[in-house]
Amino acid sequence: MKDQVIQFLHDNRDKHLKQLEEFLKIPSISSLSEHKEDVLNAAKWVEQELHQIGFEQARIMETEGLPVVYGEYIQNPEAPTVLIYGHYDVQPVDPLHLWESEPFAPEIRDNKIFARGATDDKGQVFMHLKVMEAILSMEKTSPVNFKVLIEGEEEVGSPNLPAFAQNHADLLKADLAVVSDSALVEKGKPTITYGLRGLAGIQIDVKGANSDLHSGEYGGGVMNPIHALVEIVSSFKDKEQKVLVDGFYDDIPELSEEEREALAAVPFDEEKLKNSLEVPSFNGEKGYTYTERTSARPTLEVNGMFGGFQGEGIKTVLPNEATAKITCRLVPDQDPEKIVQALTDHVHAQTPKGVTVEVTPFDKGKPYVTPFDHPVIQKAAEAYEAVYKSETAYIRGGGSIPIVAELDEILNIPVVLMGFGLPDENLHAPNEHFHLENFDQGMQTLVNYFYLLKN
Amino acid sequence: MKDQVIQFLHDNRDKHLKQLEEFLKIPSISSLSEHKEDVLNAAKWVEQELHQIGFEQARIMETEGLPVVYGEYIQNPEAPTVLIYGHYDVQPVDPLHLWESEPFAPEIRDNKIFARGATDDKGQVFMHLKVMEAILSMEKTSPVNFKVLIEGEEEVGSPNLPAFAQNHADLLKADLAVVSDSALVEKGKPTITYGLRGLAGIQIDVKGANSDLHSGEYGGGVMNPIHALVEIVSSFKDKEQKVLVDGFYDDIPELSEEEREALAAVPFDEEKLKNSLEVPSFNGEKGYTYTERTSARPTLEVNGMFGGFQGEGIKTVLPNEATAKITCRLVPDQDPEKIVQALTDHVHAQTPKGVTVEVTPFDKGKPYVTPFDHPVIQKAAEAYEAVYKSETAYIRGGGSIPIVAELDEILNIPVVLMGFGLPDENLHAPNEHFHLENFDQGMQTLVNYFYLLKN
Repeated sequence: MKDQVIQFLHDNRDKHLKQLEEFLKIPSISSLSEHKEDVLNAAKWVEQELHQIGFEQARIMETEGLPVVYGEYIQNPEAPTVLIYGHYDVQPVDPLHLWESEPFAPEIRDNKIFARGATDDKGQVFMHLKVMEAILSMEKTSPVNFKVLIEGEEEVGSPNLPAFAQNHADLLKADLAVVSDSALVEKGKPTITYGLRGLAGIQIDVKGANSDLHSGEYGGGVMNPIHALVEIVSSFKDKEQKVLVDGFYDDIPELSEEEREALAAVPFDEEKLKNSLEVPSFNGEKGYTYTERTSARPTLEVNGMFGGFQGEGIKTVLPNEATAKITCRLVPDQDPEKIVQALTDHVHAQTPKGVTVEVTPFDKGKPYVTPFDHPVIQKAAEAYEAVYKSETAYIRGGGSIPIVAELDEILNIPVVLMGFGLPDENLHAPNEHFHLENFDQGMQTLVNYFYLLKN
Repeated sequence: MKDQVIQFLHDNRDKHLKQLEEFLKIPSISSLSEHKEDVLNAAKWVEQELHQIGFEQARIMETEGLPVVYGEYIQNPEAPTVLIYGHYDVQPVDPLHLWESEPFAPEIRDNKIFARGATDDKGQVFMHLKVMEAILSMEKTSPVNFKVLIEGEEEVGSPNLPAFAQNHADLLKADLAVVSDSALVEKGKPTITYGLRGLAGIQIDVKGANSDLHSGEYGGGVMNPIHALVEIVSSFKDKEQKVLVDGFYDDIPELSEEEREALAAVPFDEEKLKNSLEVPSFNGEKGYTYTERTSARPTLEVNGMFGGFQGEGIKTVLPNEATAKITCRLVPDQDPEKIVQALTDHVHAQTPKGVTVEVTPFDKGKPYVTPFDHPVIQKAAEAYEAVYKSETAYIRGGGSIPIVAELDEILNIPVVLMGFGLPDENLHAPNEHFHLENFDQGMQTLVNYFYLLKN
């Protein structure tokens, strides 16, 4: 029967890609309030799709923010229940001029589909929908019970999902959770992510005078908010990229030799990555490898900074405000709230005289690690390897899926992070895309997995 | 006859203000190429006005960039010839949302005229035009000969005017130059500016990877161009606002005790200025007073800085480029070319690994000081004092009028800087305006001056 399910996916491939394009066309950018209607349309699209593939129950459920879509297909109380989590919201698209095709007009080129959300995460959510559809069409039942939870605020840090999960812990009760919102470590290499970084951030707004000033009349007298902000931001790190915020590293156990060896075994081709990103060299926290720095060590990055004149040429202005948006990627056992407090204290301590400063915290997510010898993780590896014919890599993800740590904590179930993206698919950047070979092989892997879980 | 000239100005005040509004309506922003047509229209407006007030000669003359308007009225070879310099171009208007009325829809409120260019410099150029018109109407001749040179690139550093002056040194030959593009030190106080700061600047463009990256996937591995730029910019100054660029202060003689005393005598009300700008305190180079720092000492200011996400909320991106626009105000005998080179060398020396940097020089102007005991300067003080009934202050201006040093050097004539603005008229900022009491009293002062020069 499993083979017929896979055949169904094969036979309907063109139709499925057309459907995926419809999903990708919806500009469901959760961070921009002008896209609220689009975000709600993406939720409706998922709800309708769940009905269409044969779920008895599918509904949009409100939160304090954007809604979640919940659905279930429960036929066999003996079979294990899988909670599938994903998100229908996407990142903003600027800078728009760097996109080769429109972000919300999906285009297939070179066996890749290009669109905002193609790999993060609509494409991968869609794979689960089609796998469940294929199983229900062929079996008229399913080897496992499904619960589906697709949210709309992942890209803004899932501020309302923990409360939702807490309030609906019974509804979401399952034996394991499966999340496809990560990437293979490289083309053709099955990859299970056993850890994720958390997230905490702040926005810093520095104000000087009550209006922009002439830099000749006032320059030298009135403090320039950009210089004040530069002074604050430069104090966050030393030249070896070590974070200087008090207490930042306090709760992080040193990496064990064992883990450092495991991370050293993860494939990493420095020259190839340098060439593909076109950077002259890498630069990060001293004393750690690239892999460690991007997955097992915390970071502090300015995501955006701006003040003063941005036009063409010269404008001799002394600006009156400047802003920086900063996020940290966290590792166990850093606590996002403590980190936000430490950042805030640091900013206030480093603000020079002559300006005022305001710090706004961003929503946060906890870091996460899980043991990778759990049977549901080992079965995921088996499912992958049958398709990809290569040994599974166990990695720690550099990114954050804020709800993963919360699901683990609230529902107390293992979370299996089996993603099918690739690291160079430009997620969060112009020209996001998804390799269709992983669309095909990933769906086969998921079919395998659900049949393996049955036993 | 002088009294009739002043009466003429009085009688025609309403008509003149209407004409000034027409001039101010032209959005002649020289730094933005999309306004090129407007800049040319402003030049035409000045040319027509010169014809209309009775000049025998007035024409638009080409340069390598935007044109100058030249006119002359020469009736008496015995009389001194005055070269009047000003500019018809204006600064950009962003941030537009902070303007209370449209920048190019002049509005008179509270006996002030609000518009971009009202005080810098269209309003003051217009005063000269009306004074000359009044004299020619009443006298049918003039106590002095006039040459008029109004340019269109002052706000972008007058890149082409030095070459123009060099190529037309004979045409521009005069006994003195008069420039009204500065401010009274305070309301009611005649002010002659005997020094001006020069200008030199660079744009710094830092590039990282070939596209924006996911801050989770790459954060900690790939150098963030904003952090690189922050590191560069923070290295420009120490915490006491001293510039750390090698050689920056080398060519500046220490201020003499005499000059420090003169500058200390310039009216300055710290509390009042702090309240009017709404800043908690001032902050500038240690060891110098506010007046010294804003006029007799050089500065380095970031006029604009930007990179990464600028939208609402959060976007966890590792940006791939960042830019800073920097200008220095210079004092004698700093050389703009040497300073640009020193800044450029500094940037390259301070650029961290993992990024590439590009430095673009901005056009420059030399600093200027002139002895204030010259007879044409003393007559200007006399002309002022007869109207304002207050003793003249001799100050050094913090801003730059790049061509002043060049006129001095090329034509070898004294340059008299007698301006009629006020320091809080928001030049280069939203809600630029010009006090009409100085429009009236300034024109009387100019009439006085031209009659005094005759003798």
